[in-house]
Amino acid sequence: MANELIYEGKAKELFTTEKEGVLRAKYKDDATALNGGRKEVFAGKGKRNNTITSLIFRYLKAHGIPSHFIEQISETEQLIRKVEIIPLEVVVRNVLAGSLAKRLGRPEGEKMDTPIVEFYFKNDALDDPFINDDHVVFLGACDRKEIETLKALALNVNEKLQELFSEIGITLVDFKLEFGRDETGAIILADEISPDTCRLWDKETKEKLDKDVFRRNIGNLITVYDEVLNRLMEVVK
Amino acid sequence: MANELIYEGKAKELFTTEKEGVLRAKYKDDATALNGGRKEVFAGKGKRNNTITSLIFRYLKAHGIPSHFIEQISETEQLIRKVEIIPLEVVVRNVLAGSLAKRLGRPEGEKMDTPIVEFYFKNDALDDPFINDDHVVFLGACDRKEIETLKALALNVNEKLQELFSEIGITLVDFKLEFGRDETGAIILADEISPDTCRLWDKETKEKLDKDVFRRNIGNLITVYDEVLNRLMEVVK
Repeated sequence: MANELIYEGKAKELFTTEKEGVLRAKYKDDATALNGGRKEVFAGKGKRNNTITSLIFRYLKAHGIPSHFIEQISETEQLIRKVEIIPLEVVVRNVLAGSLAKRLGRPEGEKMDTPIVEFYFKNDALDDPFINDDHVVFLGACDRKEIETLKALALNVNEKLQELFSEIGITLVDFKLEFGRDETGAIILADEISPDTCRLWDKETKEKLDKDVFRRNIGNLITVYDEVLNRLMEVVK
Repeated sequence: MANELIYEGKAKELFTTEKEGVLRAKYKDDATALNGGRKEVFAGKGKRNNTITSLIFRYLKAHGIPSHFIEQISETEQLIRKVEIIPLEVVVRNVLAGSLAKRLGRPEGEKMDTPIVEFYFKNDALDDPFINDDHVVFLGACDRKEIETLKALALNVNEKLQELFSEIGITLVDFKLEFGRDETGAIILADEISPDTCRLWDKETKEKLDKDVFRRNIGNLITVYDEVLNRLMEVVK
């Protein structure tokens, strides 16, 4: 059955389409923080994140990164391949910020010599706990070989995104990825990449251009998302 | 200078000796929980942990595990080699319990197919945060090769200890190890292995024979530590 809502998350809804194995993702205007504990609606956020994600996934595809993305079909919607989502948030960090800065008791802004990759177990009731490779296997989320694939893909995405954001004057501080298995079992990039899921700092002014302006109440979310979108549109065709 | 106190921790004091590179460890009667937030004194705990640790380190040495242990010299004291302590708590888990059960939202008692190894950054002010391999490197605690050595040693200790405890009717649920670098830079086992640092469950009755009786107020610490010591003395000569 087409147009059946099969998933509603904090930022997106997923619908079936007439084509087997193809879904329609609709981006919502909701912004949440504290694992959904705080929620606000920003008119126009959905279309910005949909467009930013579409631009970025097109760019990544052109640079050899396999993903679920097919095409943007409206301001707030895109077509994606249906995948079996791996229940992990894969976080890549280039600069110390956010929860890890607190966890390690060190100030935000410290640059890493090599990127840090982290796994979080996707489970709202447990607050998406931070886990290590052994926990991933124990939980049955992935096997050891898939863990290595996830890390390699995440670091590859990081390289490509650092290049892209550097070109538009932005430091890619950290970001969260999700992955899924396609019908052959191959692991491909899924979900979104947007200022909701990245920390982006202006290289010159150090201004935050991401959801931290909402989390920390330090700016206008729509204005900074527009800034990211406008800069991206200059370089990704 | 001999007999100089160079370190005082929650459970032990370390003194210099007349011999360069050799320290005297004196076990205290203090029991702490909640990272030192709760503290009580149990007369005779120090001598039990000193004797248990001495027995276990002797057993491990006989089974090829390099450690800082030299010999027990009194009820509460042992001689150890001076090492540069690596600021990590290395936890090995065979059965789900304690903080990990809570973290993953699963009941205590679940057996793992393969042991889980975890690193915690030794830092009281930060509450010894759980970290992954990339954090270990970022923090400069160890390099990648040393991480592999730590994991291999920890799993080797686990095999040997599982055999030992199995022989005396005890399930080795989980335990914490610390390691240090000797004067050549080689990594060797350090610290203690006792009911303060292990979860030990009687195989038949499932009774807890470790510091959880204090943490959870469910029994007499001295009685259960004696039980462990008496059983160990039957098999380790």
